[in-house]
Amino acid sequence: MQLGMVGLGRMGANIVRRLMRADHSCVVFDANPATREALGREGAEVAASVAEFRQRLAAPRAVWVMLPAGEVTESMIGELAGILEPGDTIIDGGNSFWKDDIRRAGALSAKGLTYLDIGTSGGVWGLERGYCLMIGGDKGAVERLDPIFCALAPGRGDIPASRHREGRAGTAEEGYLHCGPSGAGHYVKMIHNGIEYGMMQAFAEGFDILNNAASERLPADQRLTLDVADIAEVWRRGSVVTSWLLDLTAEALAEDGRLSAFSGHVADSGEGRWTVEAAIEQATPAEVLTSALYTRFRSRQDHTFAEKILSAMRKGFGGHQEQKSS
Amino acid sequence: MQLGMVGLGRMGANIVRRLMRADHSCVVFDANPATREALGREGAEVAASVAEFRQRLAAPRAVWVMLPAGEVTESMIGELAGILEPGDTIIDGGNSFWKDDIRRAGALSAKGLTYLDIGTSGGVWGLERGYCLMIGGDKGAVERLDPIFCALAPGRGDIPASRHREGRAGTAEEGYLHCGPSGAGHYVKMIHNGIEYGMMQAFAEGFDILNNAASERLPADQRLTLDVADIAEVWRRGSVVTSWLLDLTAEALAEDGRLSAFSGHVADSGEGRWTVEAAIEQATPAEVLTSALYTRFRSRQDHTFAEKILSAMRKGFGGHQEQKSS
Amino acid sequence: MQLGMVGLGRMGANIVRRLMRADHSCVVFDANPATREALGREGAEVAASVAEFRQRLAAPRAVWVMLPAGEVTESMIGELAGILEPGDTIIDGGNSFWKDDIRRAGALSAKGLTYLDIGTSGGVWGLERGYCLMIGGDKGAVERLDPIFCALAPGRGDIPASRHREGRAGTAEEGYLHCGPSGAGHYVKMIHNGIEYGMMQAFAEGFDILNNAASERLPADQRLTLDVADIAEVWRRGSVVTSWLLDLTAEALAEDGRLSAFSGHVADSGEGRWTVEAAIEQATPAEVLTSALYTRFRSRQDHTFAEKILSAMRKGFGGHQEQKSS
Amino acid sequence: MQLGMVGLGRMGANIVRRLMRADHSCVVFDANPATREALGREGAEVAASVAEFRQRLAAPRAVWVMLPAGEVTESMIGELAGILEPGDTIIDGGNSFWKDDIRRAGALSAKGLTYLDIGTSGGVWGLERGYCLMIGGDKGAVERLDPIFCALAPGRGDIPASRHREGRAGTAEEGYLHCGPSGAGHYVKMIHNGIEYGMMQAFAEGFDILNNAASERLPADQRLTLDVADIAEVWRRGSVVTSWLLDLTAEALAEDGRLSAFSGHVADSGEGRWTVEAAIEQATPAEVLTSALYTRFRSRQDHTFAEKILSAMRKGFGGHQEQKSS
Repeated sequence: MQLGMVGLGRMGANIVRRLMRADHSCVVFDANPATREALGREGAEVAASVAEFRQRLAAPRAVWVMLPAGEVTESMIGELAGILEPGDTIIDGGNSFWKDDIRRAGALSAKGLTYLDIGTSGGVWGLERGYCLMIGGDKGAVERLDPIFCALAPGRGDIPASRHREGRAGTAEEGYLHCGPSGAGHYVKMIHNGIEYGMMQAFAEGFDILNNAASERLPADQRLTLDVADIAEVWRRGSVVTSWLLDLTAEALAEDGRLSAFSGHVADSGEGRWTVEAAIEQATPAEVLTSALYTRFRSRQDHTFAEKILSAMRKGFGGHQEQKSS
Repeated sequence: MQLGMVGLGRMGANIVRRLMRADHSCVVFDANPATREALGREGAEVAASVAEFRQRLAAPRAVWVMLPAGEVTESMIGELAGILEPGDTIIDGGNSFWKDDIRRAGALSAKGLTYLDIGTSGGVWGLERGYCLMIGGDKGAVERLDPIFCALAPGRGDIPASRHREGRAGTAEEGYLHCGPSGAGHYVKMIHNGIEYGMMQAFAEGFDILNNAASERLPADQRLTLDVADIAEVWRRGSVVTSWLLDLTAEALAEDGRLSAFSGHVADSGEGRWTVEAAIEQATPAEVLTSALYTRFRSRQDHTFAEKILSAMRKGFGGHQEQKSS
Repeated sequence: MQLGMVGLGRMGANIVRRLMRADHSCVVFDANPATREALGREGAEVAASVAEFRQRLAAPRAVWVMLPAGEVTESMIGELAGILEPGDTIIDGGNSFWKDDIRRAGALSAKGLTYLDIGTSGGVWGLERGYCLMIGGDKGAVERLDPIFCALAPGRGDIPASRHREGRAGTAEEGYLHCGPSGAGHYVKMIHNGIEYGMMQAFAEGFDILNNAASERLPADQRLTLDVADIAEVWRRGSVVTSWLLDLTAEALAEDGRLSAFSGHVADSGEGRWTVEAAIEQATPAEVLTSALYTRFRSRQDHTFAEKILSAMRKGFGGHQEQKSS
Repeated sequence: MQLGMVGLGRMGANIVRRLMRADHSCVVFDANPATREALGREGAEVAASVAEFRQRLAAPRAVWVMLPAGEVTESMIGELAGILEPGDTIIDGGNSFWKDDIRRAGALSAKGLTYLDIGTSGGVWGLERGYCLMIGGDKGAVERLDPIFCALAPGRGDIPASRHREGRAGTAEEGYLHCGPSGAGHYVKMIHNGIEYGMMQAFAEGFDILNNAASERLPADQRLTLDVADIAEVWRRGSVVTSWLLDLTAEALAEDGRLSAFSGHVADSGEGRWTVEAAIEQATPAEVLTSALYTRFRSRQDHTFAEKILSAMRKGFGGHQEQKSS
């Protein structure tokens, strides 16, 4: 099957590679000529412009946009909307905001174009392991493009379907899912990332406590010097916290139990923030997902103004002088 | 190798069974005659009293106590300490508080007895999958009992060692670990459970938001009806949140996507609370692990006095009358 | 000075009353004839329609809109914009979202109209104590309407200016403040309410713990039966937590230390939610303000789906059956 | 009335001064001769040793210990217990842990000594404003020492009793309160401080958001430059958040709106931690009080190991490189 790919960063390029390995045919475009030529040498058909891109794709076209969420994606979808034909499909596989999907799908529908929003999980491992795909939008388009999704997804592998799923149709057990109408794909991906933040923070706090168990602030007979790398490794087998995130943690700690290469500045992307906003719009309490986000905010500051306010108050009512040591 | 087991509840009995499958020999005692006789019929050697228990075990004895943490365990260890001989080892495999381990190890040491504290993860699945063992205490005793631990642990299975572990000795890759001196085993298990609470809550909040995405409180054009069972299933393949806890969630949701069998009263055990206390003693922030605990506290109340205080204040300053609907 | 008031609910009517007490002249309109007539009998000039309202006000007009935030306010401002003249001023004294203020001010400016956004704190007590006013918008309009604001504000009273304020100009010490350009008034009011949520929750949790100090879950020799009404009262004098919110709590507890009249369903208004969103947009951690919001969300549900997910997982890995008791 | 005071730090010395102003007679001791002599020059009777201290006090003696909580206090109480006589009273006015009070009261009772635990709020302002006293222990001793407590407390001042208190006996309206049996005084003070932490953090977060409203991370048309000193000042009159902590904040911000003198390292004392532990023992959720504590923990670290764990995972699954900028 033929797919057009716009945006050949790590994710876009690897999606193309995985599709070509499954004998699908890919037409690719990237604003950077060197980038697109490189993928051409791996077998992709290269378009030098969006216009050429359109010509090289057979109708009904399917164009996957894999660009940074926000203005870049918005602008490219606008450009594609101007040159594609009724019946064509635009896929946003990036990390767009789900309400933007609903808006875009409506606008494109008026031109006879179909829009799919796909949340794509798998990171740098997707090329080999496959991408977990969460798809929102028109059912007909999803069914037509099934060969593409099937090739990208991890497939059943050695993970048996969950008990009690007997008799259920659908592709969830193959690692891709039509989640619902427009917006549903990115919504589900957003929550996926929200959960990811929470799980990461749970591990982070746990290992922090293990690490500090040897703290000199503790009574001498209550200090424990623990090997966090070995602990992460032992939990990978038979414990309740076994998970891919634990596997990654174990590997990082095996390399360096102090994690000295990291300063501790932690970035966050839109999905964590949008998850909190979605929770608030619904009036759903989401303490853990929110705390996980705030920890990252805090990690990027030396000191907050909030902390100085606290110190100022303490001086005000108690004459407390700030101490550096804890 | 021979091991004595006191306490034949689900955990104790299954540990005995797994040991017997590996051709170890077990002497068992339980206060309930029917319980111990039942295990006798499966091949264990039954003692009708603690005194008989002692006689049936060859010195140096190893006695594993698998009783509810707290007074029951404390009392049994005291009783065993009274009849065992120098060189014998008492193992507490339950969920004891790590500072109790330090205290007990000191007291038993004065009598020439060795004490090991073992955190045991695996729950009802341990019999088949093996138990992840986190061991604290005397190195010599740990080494002597290695065949027991090796038989109980999951073993390497099909989980390769983490990268960068080349050259590391030890048994972490087999699913059991001598974590450190007395207390270290239960300390590591405590943190394991703390992390477990946090991960569970991350999933719980995420699925709550997915579930409420169809809420009538939302604008009609921003509602999404999502199949949480399928979403849990698709995430099991290739996503960042793959984990055993997700597997369990997927299974429960496949059986009933509404989880109607559950009221939502969630119990908590000591480890979650002790994790928070350990964090506080160290001055380590642990927002997520703590929130996960508080959510369970809240789940067991109809309404808190705190909430009534809020309502009373709102009436006080704003004349707001409480509304039932949200 | 003359002011028009649209919306004669508790807040709007009391603002009119306070202005009339200070010998300002008020023209009032409310969609409900009985409501506006009632205020007429107290001395206000009544308009039977928005059109009549315009006629009765002398240019340059100042019209204060005191309606529920959202569509009602939006629609009324649109209607006023259609009939007022260049040089007139529209004031939104309700709890509008600050970004709406920025948008509206821009739109009205194109018609030569001035728009002020005013956050008004004081609740049912404002008539007697005065209203704390946080004002955003055009400096000229703010200065022209100073007599109105001065009459509404509490004034200096017996609260001396803070130390170090010598030489500062402005009206903050009188209880009203021009906070900045359009949006600034409602922004400051939004944060005020966010802080209010956090303070309320701090008291609520503290009194909850005091109340539960007699819990039978505690060891018998560690239970304390405390009189929360007396405790609230004693803190009102000389303690660090003295505050108006404590005064209100003390009064409510003096009336009924069990607060039996309240079920514990706690509503929330937009400002608490917007505060969290503002924090997230800035990447400012706001744990306490957010937790205070989530507590209210939780208070309005019998059980969350999140809690059922937890119970389902616990059953899955540990065979734990849900227990009703805590 | 006569009172002995051990420990003449800022709190102890000011308590003595306030008592002398009310014509009570004070015998004072401090390990530092210069310190005790200085107070002697202000009119106190100085003891050069604990033994002399005993002699100078008339039976039944009342000795107030005002030393740092922990070993120093414990040791002094032990020393006093060795030399005082049946019928004498020891008062711990410091910030001791309430369970220590219960233990001490029992031990002293066996010797015929009475023990009172008093939580003392008021900080550096207590000398002038009076101290809010929360008293636990024997009713008879509390009544006998009423003149002392009455002199130390703020008194009714210009704060009227709360509505609905008609007919209530007791001293709460005078600013001191017999809260209950041993431990109750420090328990109530502990919760007072827990609430104080939560309120402080609510203000801190709110002012942090106000301060960051001008952040360059925000879209240019949504930035607001706000004067936090003026905002704090205006809220002092007529708003819902009026409080002594706001007064202190307003003063600090008036002195320097950037709070440049503070680095943001925020200390915490035992009460905040004990409050969380008390909540956990009761299974009372206390999100806000706990977050307020964790914020202080975090403020004293450059980066947590937790944050490095997050960065390591992000690199693991996404190839994300840490960025310094936020």
